Amino acid sequence: MSYEVLNQSSVCDYVAAREMMRSIFPKGSRLSAKEVGDGNLNQVFIVFGNDQPDRAVIVKQALPYLRVAGDSWPLTRERMRFETQALLLYNKVAPGLVPIVYDSDDVMSVAINEYLGRHEVMRKPLVARNRFPKFAGQISTFLAQSLFLTSDLHLPGIEKKALQAQFINPHLCKLQEDFVYTNPFIESPENKWNPLIDAEVKAVRSNATLKSAIAELKEDYMTRAQALLHGDLHTGSIMLNEDDMRVIDPEFAFCGPMGYDVGALLQNLILNYLSHFSHTPNADVRAEYQHYLLQMVRDVWNGFAAKFERLWIEQNRGELAPAKYWDFAGGADEFKNFRSRYIRNILRDASGHGGCKFLRRVMGIVGVWDITSIENAEHRARVERMVIRIGSRWILERQSVESIEDLIGIVREESQ
Amino acid sequence: MSYEVLNQSSVCDYVAAREMMRSIFPKGSRLSAKEVGDGNLNQVFIVFGNDQPDRAVIVKQALPYLRVAGDSWPLTRERMRFETQALLLYNKVAPGLVPIVYDSDDVMSVAINEYLGRHEVMRKPLVARNRFPKFAGQISTFLAQSLFLTSDLHLPGIEKKALQAQFINPHLCKLQEDFVYTNPFIESPENKWNPLIDAEVKAVRSNATLKSAIAELKEDYMTRAQALLHGDLHTGSIMLNEDDMRVIDPEFAFCGPMGYDVGALLQNLILNYLSHFSHTPNADVRAEYQHYLLQMVRDVWNGFAAKFERLWIEQNRGELAPAKYWDFAGGADEFKNFRSRYIRNILRDASGHGGCKFLRRVMGIVGVWDITSIENAEHRARVERMVIRIGSRWILERQSVESIEDLIGIVREESQ
Repeated sequence: MSYEVLNQSSVCDYVAAREMMRSIFPKGSRLSAKEVGDGNLNQVFIVFGNDQPDRAVIVKQALPYLRVAGDSWPLTRERMRFETQALLLYNKVAPGLVPIVYDSDDVMSVAINEYLGRHEVMRKPLVARNRFPKFAGQISTFLAQSLFLTSDLHLPGIEKKALQAQFINPHLCKLQEDFVYTNPFIESPENKWNPLIDAEVKAVRSNATLKSAIAELKEDYMTRAQALLHGDLHTGSIMLNEDDMRVIDPEFAFCGPMGYDVGALLQNLILNYLSHFSHTPNADVRAEYQHYLLQMVRDVWNGFAAKFERLWIEQNRGELAPAKYWDFAGGADEFKNFRSRYIRNILRDASGHGGCKFLRRVMGIVGVWDITSIENAEHRARVERMVIRIGSRWILERQSVESIEDLIGIVREESQ
Repeated sequence: MSYEVLNQSSVCDYVAAREMMRSIFPKGSRLSAKEVGDGNLNQVFIVFGNDQPDRAVIVKQALPYLRVAGDSWPLTRERMRFETQALLLYNKVAPGLVPIVYDSDDVMSVAINEYLGRHEVMRKPLVARNRFPKFAGQISTFLAQSLFLTSDLHLPGIEKKALQAQFINPHLCKLQEDFVYTNPFIESPENKWNPLIDAEVKAVRSNATLKSAIAELKEDYMTRAQALLHGDLHTGSIMLNEDDMRVIDPEFAFCGPMGYDVGALLQNLILNYLSHFSHTPNADVRAEYQHYLLQMVRDVWNGFAAKFERLWIEQNRGELAPAKYWDFAGGADEFKNFRSRYIRNILRDASGHGGCKFLRRVMGIVGVWDITSIENAEHRARVERMVIRIGSRWILERQSVESIEDLIGIVREESQ
């Protein structure tokens, strides 16, 4: 069998023919499909049994181009293999926090995953001021486990190198290299921005200190293989309800700096916070929800930091600095200091990489719905100016960040 | 054909049967071999024509264990493949500065390379106070070209990732991780040190600040894939004469931090400098040769920095920060600043990684002949104490290093 693009009809035959799917759809089941693809990269179907519509799976297929840009933008289909590899690994290191993978097929660039019918993508509910009381706990567990357990703090050197080799993901890394760190900051035809912030956008593009800092962060993204990253951990890559949360779409997975994933998430929560200056005109209602969001940011980071350190204390099996290395008078204290500095450095990296992502969301190719959905251009510009000021300061001040309160402080100061 | 260990007889039949070797040894040539292996890892033969003894090649074969430790220390034979891959690449990026590869054979873990009959390994001639007037120019070219041309400053992102994947070299990286950054600093049975410096060795092993710094440098070695490194660039990996120089033995090649190669070389030259406090008792003769060596250190670094920057200006083809990125008022100046900081950071990394290598040479498994050949234990201890003081300061003060004069200054202060 060779690669062919599935459609709503052929996807049913395809699933029906897969041996691995018999436990969900017994031989002879009649199936139906519905296309639900709303992502930027792939086509996605729900396939369900005609007789048992609650039995359903998600079928994802990579197309040989970037879905959002059409077939003029070729993109290798290997991204589906990276996504499936990452989900299989996450099912081990962070079980229950990602969808189950039932089946996959490299030739067809297809994955058949758990259908999350009771979950919704997080982005829009945050604009609607929904609350997810368990989210900070769940995502901080995901971050701590996925990053710690795939790093040199936990894996023996030889296993870490095998992981690194498995996740050399050049084409999707190149998308981020271009669209997070480069193109938004030069004149590039795909960039889009609100004409009302033209002066601010141009000021960023000619801010020498900022440009150098962004180039340093790009090198960090390109070269520092600290742990396996999700690689695109924004609120559109999270599906949840009040009880349960799953991280989806890790097609950008590669070994990179831990702060990149942490920064992507914190920065998306702050973008949502800022969007309420327009979405929630009532000052009291807004203040209350924004307070909730900042507390979420605080809880995500502090939860991550505590869980990461706990894992390190309990499972220091990697070769970076094993227990024996700290076996000297004062060694236990120094190991504690080393851990604290290491975790603080993840926050500094999150500040820098998150800062770049703030900027690219208002002057690059892909905005976020939280902000693009603000119809009044003046209102949107007000929020976008905050985004630029906060992003710039997260980048420029990253080396003096000591705690999450420093990042929150910048958000407060620049959103008065 | 499957793997078998060659001997002085079978290696001749082996070479005679290789099609690729016909241009050097025409069909029917009668060959002889001489084992010359004095390295730590492999067996090495010179194979030459009985009738034309000036026609000769070097045959290297990896054994399935560490040669210096015997068959009790298994080591994968893939190291020969990494060495050959690296030599083939260096023949492109630094032509004339490495041996030519005539033939290679992954099944037998063999490489057949150019015989360097007019060259000698650099280490012992430096102890004998020989001078190599072209060396600083040659090695600084090798370093600049091999590091710049394999980095994200020159390679497009996708090519760089392919290079990185090709050189994931887990087993030889693990040797350095253990023997440069870990085992010398803990109690480990293979460590050897002069009993007269027992107090100093134990002080290093329980110096909390130093231990944390070494762990940070280990993470840098393990994770930061900045460029293709030789990975073991000491004076025993350099063959030369007055005119010509070749870098040999890149079996440790992998993508890592540039400062590691630079630091290995500078630190080996300084080790030689220090060894003359014993090898050259005549103060005037010693002072003159030590002055020569420090000038060599200065010339190697300054030559490297100038050539690296020149390559960057002329061949900024990578994606880290392309010309267009600096296209704004003041952008050319900022690009210059960015280059200066980048190159200064290579020196800081060289200081840190070189510092670790200083220490490991006097308290780990493998010493250097420059120092181990000092027979008088008191004399040797005096030099080894200098090594420890200099190595510790290169590590601890690395973040304030601004120029090569800072590193030389530490050497002078600690070798009074």
